[in-house]
Amino acid sequence: MQKYYMTFSDECPKYIQIANNIRKLIEQEILADGEKLPSIRELAKFLKVNKDTIISAYKLLSQEGAVVQILGSGSYAKKKEIIRSFKKEYRETFKKLTSGGLKEWIDFTGETTSANFVPVNNLKKAINEVLDRDGAEALIYQDVMGYEKLRDSINDRFWNNEVSLDNILIVSGAQQGIDIISKSLINVNDNVAIEKPTYIGALNVFKWRKANIIEIPMEEDGVNIKLFEKILKRYKIKCFYMMSYFQNPTGITYSKEKKKKLLELSLKYDFYIIEDDYLSELIYDDSIEYYPIKKMDDHNRVIYIKSFSKIFLPGIRMGYIITPDEFRESFQISKSNTDISTSSLMQRSLEVYISKGYWTNHMEYIEKEYHSRYILMKTILENELKDLVDFIDPKGGLSFYITIKSEVNKNSKELFYILREKNTFITPGVMFYKNSKDGENTFRLGFSQVSSEKIIEGLENIYQGLKGR
Amino acid sequence: MQKYYMTFSDECPKYIQIANNIRKLIEQEILADGEKLPSIRELAKFLKVNKDTIISAYKLLSQEGAVVQILGSGSYAKKKEIIRSFKKEYRETFKKLTSGGLKEWIDFTGETTSANFVPVNNLKKAINEVLDRDGAEALIYQDVMGYEKLRDSINDRFWNNEVSLDNILIVSGAQQGIDIISKSLINVNDNVAIEKPTYIGALNVFKWRKANIIEIPMEEDGVNIKLFEKILKRYKIKCFYMMSYFQNPTGITYSKEKKKKLLELSLKYDFYIIEDDYLSELIYDDSIEYYPIKKMDDHNRVIYIKSFSKIFLPGIRMGYIITPDEFRESFQISKSNTDISTSSLMQRSLEVYISKGYWTNHMEYIEKEYHSRYILMKTILENELKDLVDFIDPKGGLSFYITIKSEVNKNSKELFYILREKNTFITPGVMFYKNSKDGENTFRLGFSQVSSEKIIEGLENIYQGLKGR
Repeated sequence: MQKYYMTFSDECPKYIQIANNIRKLIEQEILADGEKLPSIRELAKFLKVNKDTIISAYKLLSQEGAVVQILGSGSYAKKKEIIRSFKKEYRETFKKLTSGGLKEWIDFTGETTSANFVPVNNLKKAINEVLDRDGAEALIYQDVMGYEKLRDSINDRFWNNEVSLDNILIVSGAQQGIDIISKSLINVNDNVAIEKPTYIGALNVFKWRKANIIEIPMEEDGVNIKLFEKILKRYKIKCFYMMSYFQNPTGITYSKEKKKKLLELSLKYDFYIIEDDYLSELIYDDSIEYYPIKKMDDHNRVIYIKSFSKIFLPGIRMGYIITPDEFRESFQISKSNTDISTSSLMQRSLEVYISKGYWTNHMEYIEKEYHSRYILMKTILENELKDLVDFIDPKGGLSFYITIKSEVNKNSKELFYILREKNTFITPGVMFYKNSKDGENTFRLGFSQVSSEKIIEGLENIYQGLKGR
Repeated sequence: MQKYYMTFSDECPKYIQIANNIRKLIEQEILADGEKLPSIRELAKFLKVNKDTIISAYKLLSQEGAVVQILGSGSYAKKKEIIRSFKKEYRETFKKLTSGGLKEWIDFTGETTSANFVPVNNLKKAINEVLDRDGAEALIYQDVMGYEKLRDSINDRFWNNEVSLDNILIVSGAQQGIDIISKSLINVNDNVAIEKPTYIGALNVFKWRKANIIEIPMEEDGVNIKLFEKILKRYKIKCFYMMSYFQNPTGITYSKEKKKKLLELSLKYDFYIIEDDYLSELIYDDSIEYYPIKKMDDHNRVIYIKSFSKIFLPGIRMGYIITPDEFRESFQISKSNTDISTSSLMQRSLEVYISKGYWTNHMEYIEKEYHSRYILMKTILENELKDLVDFIDPKGGLSFYITIKSEVNKNSKELFYILREKNTFITPGVMFYKNSKDGENTFRLGFSQVSSEKIIEGLENIYQGLKGR
């Protein structure tokens, strides 16, 4: 008991101080992993505090994952998995990168388009045109659904006017789209299925909604359908979050058959498909046809999210959702409660940008640029690194997902540290899984932030790193 | 039982169809208010569906408030309170207003600054300066905490550089601020105290977090402290959401004593104060000193939210939070999961706008304009309507909260309908309360969207409406 002794300051609530103390005991391994904590009554008596204070402290630790509470049994210390501290370290490395602490580096962690390809001049023209045309209106107007002309343009250009305009909801980027959908759709303890591995930003939102998260492994043409159906038979699933093109991080594109099958399952087992179409503009191979699940969705089972941020202007948060009819009102209320509406000026500017044809031209331009990087990456990986790694050809998008061959005696976190010394940065697979242990032999190489010259240098560093030299 | 009979279509999940049907039965009063619904087993058998389907249907209805589930007893119909349909009607009226369905109207529902006072030219200058100076950087850079120079400007101009820069988090408007704080701070069934009446946008967020909401009545100098302490003695409160200046809707400003007392309580009973400082720029009376609770907060008990949208550019979502140290990281993660970051271009433009002195000039300008409207409103209310209504002089802000005298035989919803016929729009008090019944004899008159001429005409309409002529 003595190890729990502590004194209190007035600076912050006691329960936080107690939690801090216990967290420290666990981190310093004074409390072993799995060790039982004192009962609430005991510890309250020992520390001379109210029982509620201990309850709050244990609750806080339990929410953080530092303590496991088992009903009728008690509370147990849980050593934080290495993933947690690693994720933090990764984030900090990333922060240093973006805040310009480094002078020169090779950044394979990028997920969004490069500053070199941002169409500043045309966007500036569009913004000024909007300000001259609409004046204050552009700065004051708020419609929770978004600027009607933009929704109209989206419908016309991307959906052949086949979607009801009332079902297009403008959001401040795809991340907000996921958040808004979750708020309306997902309740505490609902079962949510995701791809394994998946986009961490979505995973975090579902965790935050306190959903039960069920991972379905990816195969070369989409998620493992058989396993998914097994799970559907046992559990009531509320929704399935997926990326139909160039799945993040695997780069995999769903086959038409799997997309159809998913739709069938969603009808049969009554769940919704959240289709995050984040990068489908960048198709480099004619074998890939663009046909999102939403286009096959005759029964209103698909909630479609599109981001304009990843590929166009990451610093401008913009995207849209296509909602099934039954969620139209609830998504709007969710949007309104989240941030009232998306910047009116930027919506209008994007509308002008699209209607003037800038959008199409720009997409053609960056497709060419990224296509050539893709070819270069693929060529080097296939030729120079073939004895060290495996990968699935993504045929599009902005990254490769690499598996280190088992005979190479290194995992991707080790590689991360080795490469960091050479100012080369990769994203280890562990970042894309719900639990640690998974993804140890994989990593993602995004090439949006790396020039051709640097790609050659960076892959050489990776080669050396894996070779152990 | 026969009244529950229905057939199913394939169009949408059965549980939704069942819920829709029961909702209709309640709305059409075929099911009486408080009538017990069949047991899950009974109804499942009768409709030949799985028990889970009925469970889901009842859960959905319960979440909507159309059904009350009592553990160990069963489920009961709950006639939707009139407030719900009225709120919907109010929203639709409002929508019609903003989408320009009407040609001419008198809009006392406004909460934000008028388009007439939006500084288009200076903002345009600021945006172009940023695009010329920063180029692509302005469109691509993402920092979850926000643009450092803007945070620095805020600290310098509004906080005398006394706040740690790491504790200033830029958000996309105050509504998002409330949402982000709630996600980090509030768990299911936590107790959240609010002012009664309060800002509906905050109320909705707390409801969404499935918090228990406890209303503390407002008095002329802030919330009823005695009653609050009684509640604090009985319940563990997680946080108290409040507006220290020109509280929405009452227009009340807290006395210094009450602010101090609140801080004391927050320490004693270990809860956080969420201070929403949404309109304090507009002080018309020297008796009001600007001193937010955050400035007195020596123990990190106050989470401060500031909006730039209400008073400056409603269509541009922008604001900031000052976080206590212990929430710094968790608020940042919450922000990142909500929408990654706030528009970089608009943050930079605002920074330029502030540092060039445009902000100060603009505030002085609109203070003058709104001050004169305030005087006019007050004069007419005090002189012409004194036999019909009471009100507390707000001495600042953009609205008056009016109480209809009991001898006037009309409530504010009736007045709303009468005035709507004359294209004059008010916000009935019922909009600001958790439950119906409350706020029946009050309404809010916002004057930001009403010119002096229209103020005179609008108040004349209200006079006539209350007189019943």
